Amino acid sequence: MFKPAGVHTLIRQTHEDRVLRVLREHGALTRGEIASRVGLSRTTLSEITSVLLERGAIKIANTDADARAGRGRPAERLVLDPGAGQFMGVDFGHRRVRVAVSDAAHEIIASGAEFYGADSSWPERLDSCFRLIERIGAESDVHYGALQGIGIGFPGPHSPRMPKSTPLPGSQTFRPAGDLVYGSFLEKFGVPVIIDNNTRFAGLAEAIWGSGAGARNLLYVRLSDGIGGGLVVGGQLVTGASGFAGEFGHVSVSPNGIQCRCGKRGCLETIASVPAIFASCTAKGVPISSFDDLRAAVAKSDPIVTSVLREVGDALGRVIGSVAVALNPGEIVIGGEVVQIAEVIFEQAVATIAYELLPVPEAAPRIRLAQLGDDDGALGAIAALFHQSPLLASYPETKHDESQQSPMQRSIS
Amino acid sequence: MFKPAGVHTLIRQTHEDRVLRVLREHGALTRGEIASRVGLSRTTLSEITSVLLERGAIKIANTDADARAGRGRPAERLVLDPGAGQFMGVDFGHRRVRVAVSDAAHEIIASGAEFYGADSSWPERLDSCFRLIERIGAESDVHYGALQGIGIGFPGPHSPRMPKSTPLPGSQTFRPAGDLVYGSFLEKFGVPVIIDNNTRFAGLAEAIWGSGAGARNLLYVRLSDGIGGGLVVGGQLVTGASGFAGEFGHVSVSPNGIQCRCGKRGCLETIASVPAIFASCTAKGVPISSFDDLRAAVAKSDPIVTSVLREVGDALGRVIGSVAVALNPGEIVIGGEVVQIAEVIFEQAVATIAYELLPVPEAAPRIRLAQLGDDDGALGAIAALFHQSPLLASYPETKHDESQQSPMQRSIS
Repeated sequence: MFKPAGVHTLIRQTHEDRVLRVLREHGALTRGEIASRVGLSRTTLSEITSVLLERGAIKIANTDADARAGRGRPAERLVLDPGAGQFMGVDFGHRRVRVAVSDAAHEIIASGAEFYGADSSWPERLDSCFRLIERIGAESDVHYGALQGIGIGFPGPHSPRMPKSTPLPGSQTFRPAGDLVYGSFLEKFGVPVIIDNNTRFAGLAEAIWGSGAGARNLLYVRLSDGIGGGLVVGGQLVTGASGFAGEFGHVSVSPNGIQCRCGKRGCLETIASVPAIFASCTAKGVPISSFDDLRAAVAKSDPIVTSVLREVGDALGRVIGSVAVALNPGEIVIGGEVVQIAEVIFEQAVATIAYELLPVPEAAPRIRLAQLGDDDGALGAIAALFHQSPLLASYPETKHDESQQSPMQRSIS
Repeated sequence: MFKPAGVHTLIRQTHEDRVLRVLREHGALTRGEIASRVGLSRTTLSEITSVLLERGAIKIANTDADARAGRGRPAERLVLDPGAGQFMGVDFGHRRVRVAVSDAAHEIIASGAEFYGADSSWPERLDSCFRLIERIGAESDVHYGALQGIGIGFPGPHSPRMPKSTPLPGSQTFRPAGDLVYGSFLEKFGVPVIIDNNTRFAGLAEAIWGSGAGARNLLYVRLSDGIGGGLVVGGQLVTGASGFAGEFGHVSVSPNGIQCRCGKRGCLETIASVPAIFASCTAKGVPISSFDDLRAAVAKSDPIVTSVLREVGDALGRVIGSVAVALNPGEIVIGGEVVQIAEVIFEQAVATIAYELLPVPEAAPRIRLAQLGDDDGALGAIAALFHQSPLLASYPETKHDESQQSPMQRSIS
């Protein structure tokens, strides 16, 4: 009653991973040497190496003619392509696209951003993105010859299993654009493409690159125009059953509160989103309409603003605290420019979370500010690609299988 | 920066799984036939079959002497042990222990319960349990000859990584008992033993056996003396960073509410646990001290009791709704005898959850009553063992590696 999905694909990928790992560790090897090291039959091994050769992940270095001094036909020795295993992360925001590219060793080898108008069309954004990819490739001498996958982050809920148009009320839907972007990247690069929510990707990036040794259980919340988040549970990025996981902004805080765009009252977003914070300060007599205004008010410790910010931190802490009691994360990360400006939000949230949590020292998570910058979404998209390896934590809901049927194109055409 | 843990163990297990699967599908095969079917070298395959033979998972059926008619030495043909892959689930409750045993096809082949006094010692409980195992084995002609693992459920938070004594305030700690029980089972059976919270196991069982096709994202809450729960996220049972995941009873509902044993005020447990429900009815003038009292009050639709039960359902729905907004489960399951007796709790919880959720049809989970009976914890323990296979969803925090170093004993000594 418990059937693993795609066992054969998984096993093939496992074999490929092992072959690549052996080549990474040992350098050039003949097929026979590889087969004995990974414990595969020669037939299976040959199938795998031809796929890897065709894909450009490995190449023929030379033969072992010198070593065997004339006995029989020389065997070819295979090596990793020097740039084997490039992974590209793309983050489409409202006003810019960001791209980062990592090599097989998970080092970032190229990155950059390109800005566009908030009202620009998706074909325009795509053009900007492809120009950016070409530019940073030229600058960093990266030719995308060993690109193995592309992760793309968008605003809004997302799951590959989601039907076409399921925006939150009041939100723009990005799925049709997602389909366009997905198809364009697939056509241009011919490698697997995965798409997910960009805030969720940012949460994954914080779990992997923002937390020292890496966090297997992390709760990430970002205060911005809206409030989004991401959950990493048992090393997996959580999508939810239908792509809506991490929507902390719509957890109720105040049952008789302000009407939210979602239809409920008193959602966290009506208290702690950036527009809500500005509106609340303004309504209480301290007009604030920009981060500069807020920065100035914080600098002089305006008591009205401080009290608004404490309420924001408290509401945030109550929502995070409730979810943390249920999930027992090892780490809680709070992000968003407003939290960098107004530290009192973070301070109050920490205090409220501490009250809400189980009073057991072992259950207490580390609570910290987000560490990564504007490239967090792009980095998280790369991390999600790494997760596709079946030997790493799984990241099951991808379009990987679909895209494998597409033609292989390995350079920017 | 992203190192998979225990890759070699994982690969060995993957190979074992594939060999067992091929034998399950094809019946008796020679080593050569297995090797070609799974794509492994003869050397690797022989190593794997000797381990499986030693463990009793497979056995030698006959040779291929007939087929090859005298050409060369006959090759042995291997088959699955008829009872290969027995898995035992044990659930120690306050007043009884329950055991269920499944075969390799995941069918339950033996089960039963043994009662003990709530004040009996752990050595006494262990004796009861071992007697029970012997009795149901004899009744069902199950000799535990192919036992591959034992899952044991306890009340209270649990994680193999947890320090020794971390009870919730007001709770008994079960960890020292857990160590005793773990050691006793390991010594007696010599197979991998995993231990976890029994309510969490019940949640996993509901996800796998209570939901038709199986739920990959499920939120389970049980109202009892306390309130516990379990979360399945992306097919994984969630333990949390330190073993406290699923403690829905201590999510705050009413900031100015009743003092909870955990030190906070207005936790869900102060409103919706069975003792809290009885106390609330009694305080409002309808003395209730047993399920029979409650059943009688429900039968005559007592308005005071109904109003208490609606408050219970509402508090429950608010907690579940908040967590569900964050996690986007596909299924929500509410369990506990009190919910079976007082359906209005469930009705009100469903209504409140519907309000709390994102108003997007695609995000709406199925909400249902628990389907399984008192053996849910034992069944979930078995399910957790199945999860140990690397090709199924992972269940990483186990003592599997430790126990593999123990001597192999395959029958009750």
